[in-house]
Amino acid sequence: MTVAILGVGLIGGSIGLALRRGGRAVRVVGIGRDPAGLELARGRGAIDHGTTDPARGLAEADVVVVCTPVGRIATDAISAAAAAPPGVLITDAGSTKASIVRAVEADDRARGAFVAGHPLAGSERKGVAHARADLFDDRPCVLTPTDRTPSDRIDRARSFWQSLGCRVVTMTPDEHDRALAMTSHLPHAVAAALARSVPAELLGLAAGAYRDGTRVSASTSELWAEIFLDNRGPLLDALSRFEAELTGLRRAVESADPAAVASWWDEAAGRRSRLDGDGPTRENPR
Amino acid sequence: MTVAILGVGLIGGSIGLALRRGGRAVRVVGIGRDPAGLELARGRGAIDHGTTDPARGLAEADVVVVCTPVGRIATDAISAAAAAPPGVLITDAGSTKASIVRAVEADDRARGAFVAGHPLAGSERKGVAHARADLFDDRPCVLTPTDRTPSDRIDRARSFWQSLGCRVVTMTPDEHDRALAMTSHLPHAVAAALARSVPAELLGLAAGAYRDGTRVSASTSELWAEIFLDNRGPLLDALSRFEAELTGLRRAVESADPAAVASWWDEAAGRRSRLDGDGPTRENPR
Repeated sequence: MTVAILGVGLIGGSIGLALRRGGRAVRVVGIGRDPAGLELARGRGAIDHGTTDPARGLAEADVVVVCTPVGRIATDAISAAAAAPPGVLITDAGSTKASIVRAVEADDRARGAFVAGHPLAGSERKGVAHARADLFDDRPCVLTPTDRTPSDRIDRARSFWQSLGCRVVTMTPDEHDRALAMTSHLPHAVAAALARSVPAELLGLAAGAYRDGTRVSASTSELWAEIFLDNRGPLLDALSRFEAELTGLRRAVESADPAAVASWWDEAAGRRSRLDGDGPTRENPR
Repeated sequence: MTVAILGVGLIGGSIGLALRRGGRAVRVVGIGRDPAGLELARGRGAIDHGTTDPARGLAEADVVVVCTPVGRIATDAISAAAAAPPGVLITDAGSTKASIVRAVEADDRARGAFVAGHPLAGSERKGVAHARADLFDDRPCVLTPTDRTPSDRIDRARSFWQSLGCRVVTMTPDEHDRALAMTSHLPHAVAAALARSVPAELLGLAAGAYRDGTRVSASTSELWAEIFLDNRGPLLDALSRFEAELTGLRRAVESADPAAVASWWDEAAGRRSRLDGDGPTRENPR
């Protein structure tokens, strides 16, 4: 089997490493614009072969995984469908789904090959240098097929992401985007707002709560500006929900009511405690 | 030297472990209300001796460290000053300082013995079972003496906290409370608001950003309700500042302006990158 990875950064590189572990009979081709990055990926064992020529890299692909930035995924998937063999499965790793699926489904050939995906794994670190073979182990991967997606491709996409270690979950593109606005995009927005709030001269007094709470704000703005704007409506709704929670605390503190503050906090602690497997090594890959 | 620790939980226990490492000639007496907790502290090597009788535990103390909850620290420090020998140094580990210093300085005897302290170290975990000898290594400890604090006590307090591994910083109680409202209390409030924002049924899709961003909300409400209310004014100011940052993002997203969103994010990433020594093991003890 030949898997072509379009965009060999943290995610693409980790997919390659996961595919090649355990000596499986998979040939991994990396497609990118930067020869040095492809060479690094090959040196790290993430790909067998790298090329800057998409046509060559896609010619024998059984599976194409599009790992380019959100704003380029649909175009890249459509080009891949045109260049790859007819039986190809195309999937992606983008953080938003509705606009991508809409754009890809407008193309007849791509529509029949594409199953949108989103593995919930990552890091604030960028690039294949930080790729890890176990990045996807036991992480959810959301697939968002539609009623126009061929069922054999759905099955193959499920098997593919499972082979990387993911637990596959299926929902509609809109459900995905609303859910991830809450579970991922909002936490990123909050982390960045928190990072901005603390004056630079006070950073020496920052405790673990600031450090942890702002960790993901070290990610790149190109990535997050695209995600925030692509998922604008659901993100604004999530921000409103969060602001209402903060207002609840403000009122309790203003009223100087210990019971109200404590019960506000207890609800938070209770919600947090429902997260499974509270081990940072397992659930919080860096 | 005899050090009496009033309240042997995570912080008090870690102070004992730090004092006793390296075989120093220090006798550590733990004072608490729960005999089982004291026995656990002794078993872990955090104290040499435990007692539920403050008078006995304080009788020979050269140093008393008050590690009880914020709302009890002033009362405990005043009682300790009455029970301990005249030469005693009393310090504390409370997360707020202005109200504690004000209350303690109203007592003549306590005023001459007390140097308020706040080691910026901790964990969302509670109890001596999670205490660590290295909890304070290279962490800031803020001392907030006033012009009524005897200078010999300031010197002794500085040496004491340095002996635990802390870097000692000095400021006024009000400066401390305003700074910590930004660097610690706000991040805790934001973490809890974020925890509350995500519906329980979506937690299976929570990514590392939610996990990290809400970690400290697992702390106990008794602790945080007291801190929030004790430091009400500075906390409300910090919340306003944070809300303004979030509004900045909202406007940029609403205007669908990629450059505005990216520059908002870049400012956050830049601030975050100024934190020193970006290693979770060193700066973020759990």
